[in-house]
Amino acid sequence: MGYLHEGHLSLVQEARRRADVVVASIYVNPTQFSATEDFGVYPNSRAEDRRRLEEAGVGATFEPATLYATGRSSGASGDHANVVGMGAPAAGAHETWVEVTRLQTGLCGGSRPHFFRGVATVVAKLFNIVEPDVAVFGRKDYQQWRVLTRMARDLDFAVEVVGLPLVREPDGLAMSSRNALLDSNARKRALSISESLRWAEEACSRGEAPGVQVLRQGVADRISAAGGRVDYVEVVDADELVPVEELDARPVLVAVAAFFGSVRLMDNLELQGS
Amino acid sequence: MGYLHEGHLSLVQEARRRADVVVASIYVNPTQFSATEDFGVYPNSRAEDRRRLEEAGVGATFEPATLYATGRSSGASGDHANVVGMGAPAAGAHETWVEVTRLQTGLCGGSRPHFFRGVATVVAKLFNIVEPDVAVFGRKDYQQWRVLTRMARDLDFAVEVVGLPLVREPDGLAMSSRNALLDSNARKRALSISESLRWAEEACSRGEAPGVQVLRQGVADRISAAGGRVDYVEVVDADELVPVEELDARPVLVAVAAFFGSVRLMDNLELQGS
Repeated sequence: MGYLHEGHLSLVQEARRRADVVVASIYVNPTQFSATEDFGVYPNSRAEDRRRLEEAGVGATFEPATLYATGRSSGASGDHANVVGMGAPAAGAHETWVEVTRLQTGLCGGSRPHFFRGVATVVAKLFNIVEPDVAVFGRKDYQQWRVLTRMARDLDFAVEVVGLPLVREPDGLAMSSRNALLDSNARKRALSISESLRWAEEACSRGEAPGVQVLRQGVADRISAAGGRVDYVEVVDADELVPVEELDARPVLVAVAAFFGSVRLMDNLELQGS
Repeated sequence: MGYLHEGHLSLVQEARRRADVVVASIYVNPTQFSATEDFGVYPNSRAEDRRRLEEAGVGATFEPATLYATGRSSGASGDHANVVGMGAPAAGAHETWVEVTRLQTGLCGGSRPHFFRGVATVVAKLFNIVEPDVAVFGRKDYQQWRVLTRMARDLDFAVEVVGLPLVREPDGLAMSSRNALLDSNARKRALSISESLRWAEEACSRGEAPGVQVLRQGVADRISAAGGRVDYVEVVDADELVPVEELDARPVLVAVAAFFGSVRLMDNLELQGS
């Protein structure tokens, strides 16, 4: 979606290692935003993005004006309200959605019910347009990576979906385009997210793992104490994303989403199991 | 889905005209049948189908045993009950569905609510596996053709979706694999479907078109009088499949589904408008 940071560039680097030609898409996909979300203020820096991608060795950038048919009687094309179906859709407007029915629920799917439908649909479109052999995503958006991996398998896309580790700022904050929307005070308080996950990791590495409830509560309390509004803290199976009752040999994900002001941030911790 | 008739072979012929290599798939797709439908008794004649396809110049037939992942803890693979999700799905089982949200409702979508979801999903898979340039479908399954045309456009499949006219038996019955399930008495009574559509066509060609309600009722009455159980008779816009209030310059479809005994038959009439 553009406004690139080092996390994105790590994806380009891996893509170059795996493929002869790398294509980067820059498209703020309207169908993964609801009416009340930050589609209109999503940060944007196209010229700078292009420069950085070229420098990183990308062969082409794909920057469509719109990817959704708006139908016969529609005025403006590619308009957010039109595409996400506020009001009655025009005859002939886009109406096909890819739903990954289990993995798209829970975690971010709880507070953003249409989010993964929008993500899966736009990535199916990008796969069909670009026809890549490999597609590289960040595990910062862990659930997205799981949803897209499952979609590629279930619909038999001839695309290998690769997920790379999230990349952090020097002080620990998970890199995100949305970090640019934080003022300096919120930016400082938001560090509580990564700090709470570091606490969780250390608690688990001490040999006697705490219970799942203790872990969740401990993470949530640390974020709340810093003035964040917790959307969710979940401990889930690393593949299927269903909540686990206890920590055992299975790999799990500790996943967090929290608001600082109006900015929603995500972070996660992968635990390999005992 | 196999059990081929002349209608299918007309698709092969057109595909040969348009493409250097023709692939035919034979797969009775479990996800487009509900628990109470005729998946288990769908007619089957694989050896004969293969012979006819080869004779017709098909380069390859694609006959997968199953197209759906059944997950970790599952026993039999490709089992109908498992795939269509009767009971809780196994972890890792198929869970991705393509929904063409408006066109999949109405007509056959009314009495078969999951039907087009199953059709769109399996065709998305077939498109990704076979990677055809052109895909040829019959307009006997008119709504299916509209759904798949819309899906291909909306998901940017590089596939031209072609719809060919339905093919009739000499006495007028629309060709269908399911005709083989009719006993001779039901077979005779089922002719009321095509006869009622011929009546509708003649009524419309007389210059003063009857009202839509008169048309629907006339078709339904003729089928009921022959002992058929009408599922629906609809007069809809030929592109978007929404019911029309009156016959005017727009092309419309008169679409019928009716049961004779336990066998569900479909037929339709395309009217070009005045």
